[in-house]
Amino acid sequence: MRYLRREDIEDFALGGGLFGCGGGGDTYIGKLMLETEMQRVPEIPLLSIDEVPDDALVVLTAIVGAPSVFLEKLPNGGEDRRVIEQVEKECGKPVFGILIGEVGGLNSVLPAVTAARLGLPLIDADPTGRCVPSVHATSFNINHLNISPIVIADEFMNTVVIRTDDHLKGERLTRSIIVEMGGSAIFAFCPVTGAELRRIGLAGAVTHPIQVGRAIREAREGGQSPFKAVADLLTATPLYGWADTLIEGKITDVQRRSDTGFTIGSAVIHSLGEDADRLDLEFKNEHLVARINGRIRATVPDLITVLDSETGEHIGTDRLRYGQRVTVMLVRAPAIWRTARGLSLLGPRGYGIDCDYVPVEVLNGGGEEVRVR
Amino acid sequence: MRYLRREDIEDFALGGGLFGCGGGGDTYIGKLMLETEMQRVPEIPLLSIDEVPDDALVVLTAIVGAPSVFLEKLPNGGEDRRVIEQVEKECGKPVFGILIGEVGGLNSVLPAVTAARLGLPLIDADPTGRCVPSVHATSFNINHLNISPIVIADEFMNTVVIRTDDHLKGERLTRSIIVEMGGSAIFAFCPVTGAELRRIGLAGAVTHPIQVGRAIREAREGGQSPFKAVADLLTATPLYGWADTLIEGKITDVQRRSDTGFTIGSAVIHSLGEDADRLDLEFKNEHLVARINGRIRATVPDLITVLDSETGEHIGTDRLRYGQRVTVMLVRAPAIWRTARGLSLLGPRGYGIDCDYVPVEVLNGGGEEVRVR
Repeated sequence: MRYLRREDIEDFALGGGLFGCGGGGDTYIGKLMLETEMQRVPEIPLLSIDEVPDDALVVLTAIVGAPSVFLEKLPNGGEDRRVIEQVEKECGKPVFGILIGEVGGLNSVLPAVTAARLGLPLIDADPTGRCVPSVHATSFNINHLNISPIVIADEFMNTVVIRTDDHLKGERLTRSIIVEMGGSAIFAFCPVTGAELRRIGLAGAVTHPIQVGRAIREAREGGQSPFKAVADLLTATPLYGWADTLIEGKITDVQRRSDTGFTIGSAVIHSLGEDADRLDLEFKNEHLVARINGRIRATVPDLITVLDSETGEHIGTDRLRYGQRVTVMLVRAPAIWRTARGLSLLGPRGYGIDCDYVPVEVLNGGGEEVRVR
Repeated sequence: MRYLRREDIEDFALGGGLFGCGGGGDTYIGKLMLETEMQRVPEIPLLSIDEVPDDALVVLTAIVGAPSVFLEKLPNGGEDRRVIEQVEKECGKPVFGILIGEVGGLNSVLPAVTAARLGLPLIDADPTGRCVPSVHATSFNINHLNISPIVIADEFMNTVVIRTDDHLKGERLTRSIIVEMGGSAIFAFCPVTGAELRRIGLAGAVTHPIQVGRAIREAREGGQSPFKAVADLLTATPLYGWADTLIEGKITDVQRRSDTGFTIGSAVIHSLGEDADRLDLEFKNEHLVARINGRIRATVPDLITVLDSETGEHIGTDRLRYGQRVTVMLVRAPAIWRTARGLSLLGPRGYGIDCDYVPVEVLNGGGEEVRVR
């Protein structure tokens, strides 16, 4: 039996940021909450997807809404129990374990808090493999699982249960409720059995952040570049299989606005050499496209992530500032996102970027193109 | 045992309009739906609140949203069954009968459609005694009953269940969901027992419309003024106890806009005599205040209603037009609305009318002021 232990928290939160791709919210508050819970529960059983019985029910918990709201509108700490109990009532069976809501940012850490509070195992899997901006962009949807019930609770214990066959409608109803709840809430959706999970879950949503965090920390301790270590690590994982550093440089411009609940804008980064390359990033919570000297080098759904060059810590799109020394990394998206259905949910055209999707490893001349199924 | 019969439909729909006070939506489409159902079910058992067993569960059904949307976005006919079944699941017991959603407009007719479809009795009561603009303005709220569960279904059978202790939060969450559902949906809320119903239900929500409709029809058939007949009838009811005609005249101006889901505006009516009186109406879906030559003669929560002078039919605020010959009637609000809590929900100040509430019978020098409890 594996466990998530107190000594893992620092690496888990540090590494989780990378998969946020600019979004997902700062892991800091999640780290504090997890540290608090794990003073009481020093280890949380951590199960691989193969250890979940076929008919056992698992479900994710997550914060939905604007992470910037969540930092000021704190949960009361009982919402996650409420949503899990409601899921059990809706499904007529107990919840066996907690999935990661989405690897990356706050939602890679908060489900561990829920697992500790409820005394349930944490499942080393999530439905996205990276941060995504909406409830319907998941492998649940790609694999045609029913999204219902969606259970939402706010800090006053107002509870809403949505039943719909349509993931996009689920996203929209959830979003309208979140706005009325003040901008953020805790929720659970699409409970699945162990058998279903094996069909659609992306394994490693706890392991990968811990490994990345440890690689960054150990490289820093050894006076080495953390980015090479992270690229090597992720290239060796079955889920990602390719990662590289795109540029190291200085932020020379940031344009940003808040619109319809999203952080939208662009940033310019110049590399530090003599004939400096110019990197243009566009983002909508998450980074959407990266261009070097005008040429596209990566688009969604591949992971584009901005890390602090000194510390290796993830810098969210809401915290990009002029003068920051940053390193931009690219990571190949999990294969589900490269299917036609995956690209319809998280491909460049859905974000108004007028190009077909080209895999990041092709655009950057490395690795081998992954065949989509 | 009393019954609602096919031959009552015409009067029921005609008389129901009056309690709409300008809002509530046209009863016409409801009448068509009820005629269709009652070809199959020619009589619907009609129970007084005293005939509901103490522990039997009753609940209202209603359309929530903009009535003008409902006229073009038709229900699929299965939403009411869905919400009732969900209420039964939430409460763990069968629904015994259907309450009127609100007397007035469409929602005084649609619950009869539900009762016919589900083979349940219709209860001759509602929680408002007139049309109201929001989910939290009910005698349920005035009497501190828990509003939950609120169950909402749209024509795609997307279903939402809200649990909250706060009627206003229930209104707001419902409203945000309705907008996402396209502007209207069918819903049920605040299921109550027979014992609770007797404490808070306003009796006569089927009887009063039928009586008013019959009075209008018979007066017209006899070549008499329907308005005197209606005033006499309502003055004789325990629930209302006072009614009168304010003015008969011609609409000379209408200002109207759609804003935040409401029909907001004003109308001017001049009486037909030599030294014509001028009546100013302000409305927000329902009529809020009536002034004759600048002097207030009625405000919410008392009923201000505009009827066609020829036919006695209710004219909603969305259908007021220059040149219409209309008769404006005033009806005393049920006593619950004259309590401090009732006035906080439906009094003039809540609508930005800068005056204290003065009972309509005092403003018009007739009848006796009803003591509030």
